[in-house]
Amino acid sequence: MIGGGIGAFIGDAHRRASRICNDYELVGGVFDIDYEKSKEFAVNQGIDLKRVYKSVDALIKAELALPAGERMEAVAIVTPNALHYPFAKKLLSNGFHLICEKPMTLTVKEALDLEKLVAKNKLTFALTHTYTGYPMVRQMRDLIAKGVLGTIQRIDAQYYQGWINAIIYGTGSRITGVWRLDPKHAGVSSCMGDIGVHAFNLIEYTTGLEVKEVLADLNNVKDGVKLDLDGTVLIRFNKKLKGVIRASQVCAGLENDIIIAVYGSKGSLRWHQEEPNFLYLYSDSEPTKVYKPAHGYNEKAAEEGHTMPAGHPEGIYEALANIYKGAAKSIRKEKFKPGEFPTVHDGVRGMKFIHAAVNSNAKGNVWTKL
Amino acid sequence: MIGGGIGAFIGDAHRRASRICNDYELVGGVFDIDYEKSKEFAVNQGIDLKRVYKSVDALIKAELALPAGERMEAVAIVTPNALHYPFAKKLLSNGFHLICEKPMTLTVKEALDLEKLVAKNKLTFALTHTYTGYPMVRQMRDLIAKGVLGTIQRIDAQYYQGWINAIIYGTGSRITGVWRLDPKHAGVSSCMGDIGVHAFNLIEYTTGLEVKEVLADLNNVKDGVKLDLDGTVLIRFNKKLKGVIRASQVCAGLENDIIIAVYGSKGSLRWHQEEPNFLYLYSDSEPTKVYKPAHGYNEKAAEEGHTMPAGHPEGIYEALANIYKGAAKSIRKEKFKPGEFPTVHDGVRGMKFIHAAVNSNAKGNVWTKL
Amino acid sequence: MIGGGIGAFIGDAHRRASRICNDYELVGGVFDIDYEKSKEFAVNQGIDLKRVYKSVDALIKAELALPAGERMEAVAIVTPNALHYPFAKKLLSNGFHLICEKPMTLTVKEALDLEKLVAKNKLTFALTHTYTGYPMVRQMRDLIAKGVLGTIQRIDAQYYQGWINAIIYGTGSRITGVWRLDPKHAGVSSCMGDIGVHAFNLIEYTTGLEVKEVLADLNNVKDGVKLDLDGTVLIRFNKKLKGVIRASQVCAGLENDIIIAVYGSKGSLRWHQEEPNFLYLYSDSEPTKVYKPAHGYNEKAAEEGHTMPAGHPEGIYEALANIYKGAAKSIRKEKFKPGEFPTVHDGVRGMKFIHAAVNSNAKGNVWTKL
Amino acid sequence: MIGGGIGAFIGDAHRRASRICNDYELVGGVFDIDYEKSKEFAVNQGIDLKRVYKSVDALIKAELALPAGERMEAVAIVTPNALHYPFAKKLLSNGFHLICEKPMTLTVKEALDLEKLVAKNKLTFALTHTYTGYPMVRQMRDLIAKGVLGTIQRIDAQYYQGWINAIIYGTGSRITGVWRLDPKHAGVSSCMGDIGVHAFNLIEYTTGLEVKEVLADLNNVKDGVKLDLDGTVLIRFNKKLKGVIRASQVCAGLENDIIIAVYGSKGSLRWHQEEPNFLYLYSDSEPTKVYKPAHGYNEKAAEEGHTMPAGHPEGIYEALANIYKGAAKSIRKEKFKPGEFPTVHDGVRGMKFIHAAVNSNAKGNVWTKL
Repeated sequence: MIGGGIGAFIGDAHRRASRICNDYELVGGVFDIDYEKSKEFAVNQGIDLKRVYKSVDALIKAELALPAGERMEAVAIVTPNALHYPFAKKLLSNGFHLICEKPMTLTVKEALDLEKLVAKNKLTFALTHTYTGYPMVRQMRDLIAKGVLGTIQRIDAQYYQGWINAIIYGTGSRITGVWRLDPKHAGVSSCMGDIGVHAFNLIEYTTGLEVKEVLADLNNVKDGVKLDLDGTVLIRFNKKLKGVIRASQVCAGLENDIIIAVYGSKGSLRWHQEEPNFLYLYSDSEPTKVYKPAHGYNEKAAEEGHTMPAGHPEGIYEALANIYKGAAKSIRKEKFKPGEFPTVHDGVRGMKFIHAAVNSNAKGNVWTKL
Repeated sequence: MIGGGIGAFIGDAHRRASRICNDYELVGGVFDIDYEKSKEFAVNQGIDLKRVYKSVDALIKAELALPAGERMEAVAIVTPNALHYPFAKKLLSNGFHLICEKPMTLTVKEALDLEKLVAKNKLTFALTHTYTGYPMVRQMRDLIAKGVLGTIQRIDAQYYQGWINAIIYGTGSRITGVWRLDPKHAGVSSCMGDIGVHAFNLIEYTTGLEVKEVLADLNNVKDGVKLDLDGTVLIRFNKKLKGVIRASQVCAGLENDIIIAVYGSKGSLRWHQEEPNFLYLYSDSEPTKVYKPAHGYNEKAAEEGHTMPAGHPEGIYEALANIYKGAAKSIRKEKFKPGEFPTVHDGVRGMKFIHAAVNSNAKGNVWTKL
Repeated sequence: MIGGGIGAFIGDAHRRASRICNDYELVGGVFDIDYEKSKEFAVNQGIDLKRVYKSVDALIKAELALPAGERMEAVAIVTPNALHYPFAKKLLSNGFHLICEKPMTLTVKEALDLEKLVAKNKLTFALTHTYTGYPMVRQMRDLIAKGVLGTIQRIDAQYYQGWINAIIYGTGSRITGVWRLDPKHAGVSSCMGDIGVHAFNLIEYTTGLEVKEVLADLNNVKDGVKLDLDGTVLIRFNKKLKGVIRASQVCAGLENDIIIAVYGSKGSLRWHQEEPNFLYLYSDSEPTKVYKPAHGYNEKAAEEGHTMPAGHPEGIYEALANIYKGAAKSIRKEKFKPGEFPTVHDGVRGMKFIHAAVNSNAKGNVWTKL
Repeated sequence: MIGGGIGAFIGDAHRRASRICNDYELVGGVFDIDYEKSKEFAVNQGIDLKRVYKSVDALIKAELALPAGERMEAVAIVTPNALHYPFAKKLLSNGFHLICEKPMTLTVKEALDLEKLVAKNKLTFALTHTYTGYPMVRQMRDLIAKGVLGTIQRIDAQYYQGWINAIIYGTGSRITGVWRLDPKHAGVSSCMGDIGVHAFNLIEYTTGLEVKEVLADLNNVKDGVKLDLDGTVLIRFNKKLKGVIRASQVCAGLENDIIIAVYGSKGSLRWHQEEPNFLYLYSDSEPTKVYKPAHGYNEKAAEEGHTMPAGHPEGIYEALANIYKGAAKSIRKEKFKPGEFPTVHDGVRGMKFIHAAVNSNAKGNVWTKL
């Protein structure tokens, strides 16, 4: 693991998820830019200090020197955004499978570069678009693939949060995310780069369709803020299919309010992240149907993604564990289906989306191709 | 009443609402373009056939001939859209108060014309944006006016339905609304004109803010359809406040799925029409609060709009009755507060919105002032 | 109308409901025990003072003196409980159809007496168990009658409120219901008599089954309170089918929290009064189904009980109007189906339930036959 | 670990939970009564075969022979009910800390025996009443302890499932739980022993009150079934405080429908297991409040039980991990608060409840002391 030391929330999530799915063991890493802190963390976690490294370079060198069976097989990158690309490039070049936080890179070029490397070196690259690990999101994808919605006529994805308010107004104590407002660490976008891209990914994941162009209206909300904290992005798939992505980090009191909704000629599907074990299918001619995990009526992917009997709610860690599970299958060369984990290609798509949105906004809200 | 004869749903709603609030008596009208059907309807309703007229002109002439105390005081116009303006103009010119269905007219010019007439003749003109009659919508307006949200940072209104699918795909038996797809009767827009304008009105009603400009992306969805059935409209209030209106008539299985959400720096409010007696206030520092009618903690307007004790759900008829009640106060020259019923000015704003949205779309999705 | 004068909530509800269904006109009554107040009320309502009577006897005498076509056809009794029986008896004896609030009488004997009178005089007697007027309650009844639940295995009905707290602790300003705690006006029970009986009625209404015996544990909650404010009643239908009725008037903050749930071998149905337009059907083998009004998939009774298009919520007034509508059909000798309004027999059943529950509790929680 | 081999759902849950909280390592056990299967399981899990034992006796002998630092510290018992007691007794007698599935034993005597052993040997005994590990259940307990509800006036707990229908009607494929219907393996009760006891435990956990006596009406539902599958239990705390426990395994289509509700003079709290991250506080004078995890407004126990930021739903595994975490603190002699894990005393209380309920029912539904 690179990053994820003391106090880092997302690194902790990765560790728990990897333990839940029981396919991974954390054996070492570079947990903090400060080597002493990195070691302190390793001691807390019961990790052998020999495999706590001063740098990614040192890690690569030392691990490659180990016999194949003892070497780290996969590395999880959970650093701030700007470091994803350089570390990923080095690790992929040296044959390590990767699990990487999103956004994958800062630029489209970097993303394409990683995509090539993954293909060339035949490695597994899992991008943690965690929400695609929820069983009911997988069920939604499979129901759409089966055609239950008829012709898709509208797509609407929402990702609303409020936690950045505490930062821009200097209230509250949640300061861990301040780097997200700094273009040097976060890249060209805060809201679209951090959460809008999840909404975008859920659209392409559940429908199997590609967004062709976007028209974005972004909002920095407050003087002095350098990145977008809020925005609406019109999206187009083809002449008759349009939609919208709505994202905001300044909706006070909202937590992680993600909705993915796909509306078709014969039915509509809607899923809400804060109640992840419910999937709603609306139709004109039948009562609304509510799908839940652990039932024989679900498609296979949904069923495999839920281990408890019906009515025992699983949550975000289990969703992330499902992605770790899918990546493990790929690493082990076992059979898996597209959709079991987001790939480097999803990362490329995400970077294209973020940059197209930012460019559309900068040019005065004009249509911009991905 | 003009229109609203046998089989007309909205006329029936007006009659029930006026009876609930008990300030009106239906004494006559032109219920159908076909005089025989009009009379048949009147017989069913127990209305004196002497006051069933062949035309609006005949109605005006005969009623004006009656002594002031016996004359119709107010007329409800519940015809297809294209007839609103000519009938409203005649009736206002002859001193009748009006309750009128929306959209108020077909053009902005007509709307402005009616606004002038109402002012000149000092009449009451109530436009039935029914959703503003719900107690919890009124509570939302008053909470925002009190400043509980801090700085408003985002506004998002949704109006999704699915019933037009049955018409464009020739399924189902709901054909009463077919005239809505014909520009001659419906005007320049179906989706924005019929339902988008409600979302727009809810925004201006709850926040007291004016939308300054729009950028619309509309969708006719299917070849051969002449009007928009779906669309997204970016909206701007000022440099730092943006938002979005989303409306669709082709979201299969959705009924009348209206959400108005206003997000501020200190809190956010959200209301959903299909569960109208619940209003959600989100904040970063306190548990989410759920307001319900018939409680001392509500503002006055909300309390006056709900007559049953807490927990006895009132619905759409009662909301419409609240608007009839507000109009009755105005007609009787009793004291009332802005917001008790939508006025001709709301009608003007609505027409400006519809036309700006259609123009923005026609010009290639460009910003268009209202 | 008898009772229901100034400030009376339930009388107002009856008037609105009768106006919504448009089958009734309020022409006179005894609105208050104080004749002056009764007249004041009539003036406010625009009722002819000639038909405002000093007493029920005076009303009967004067109305019978009118020609048949001008005479009151039906009388609504909305007085405190103790007056239901004497007034109902007089009115039925003189040939008036009745709409009567519940509980129908104070004793089982009185109830049986009214049942005989109704049969003998061939009159319509509608008891306003209002919740049976909701479309989704009627849908539940019809789905159960069709057998969608398989063998019914458990029945559970809840009616929880909190408003009596304000009375027993002397807080709040809701004093209109104080008579409910006085045995002279309310009869043998507060909680079971006022609300438990609604839960009981919903059970028999939706399932068509008869409760055979009860074992009740009631609670007066606070020293000095003379009647039950809370209680649980075990119920039995037959050897293999049991259930429970739970009711309370001291659940602080709860409004009108009624749930009727019927659990079967093949499926289960659940309805919640505060969201009356949603009916949930659970099954082991299919996604949960949510029924809503105004859809072709509903049974006829549900559809006829909802006049607005889907997604326009109707509420408690419309439910009561449905019962008034059913009674009107019966009064006019039109065809109607059992279940369109609760009858005097439902009133007899209710009185038997209340008395059995009170007796079971008084004897130390023993099984007591209805 | 004892039990929990191939195909066992609850053992898998324990393993995942212990890995999530990261305080445990699974080093060995007796995973199956069949030694070959036990070894096969261990191989799958990557467990050293040296520590896969043929019996609990063999485990004890071998582990005690290891140096203190290498020895198993704690054992998880996840066998069918009848084996809990004999294994627990042996392990406690030999100084092993225990994590044990419920119901703890088959008889009250056995339960008291274990309680004595735990006290005598100063060991940690955690009983996995998993639902007490949910953050919002802990919040409920702390809010009640702070007195926010005023005088508690009613308590109502529900645990409804439907999965036994598939067994008694021979449909479906869920046969893993068949032993639960056999008195030899399950003890005196199915429904009360398996799930009613959870409802009972949630009551005592959230309120800190003790149920004094019960009156139970149980139902075997179908001829040939030897144990209760359904029942209602009246409960009493003192003269003025009563309540009810409702449990069923034959509510078709219900999953794991647990509700714990405590109603007081000043407010009421309600929690629903299938939406575990929402806790509702009702009051007469304020809007309903919805508590969610990961907010500064929560009490400490709730906050410590949720690791993700607000809006990232955690579920049942995390709840169980919280109990494992509490037990780990106790085993390590760290400071912990009552309520961090259910103890052997909770097990004794549970056994008293189950037996009192069964006895009350057998004697004809009479009050029975715990």
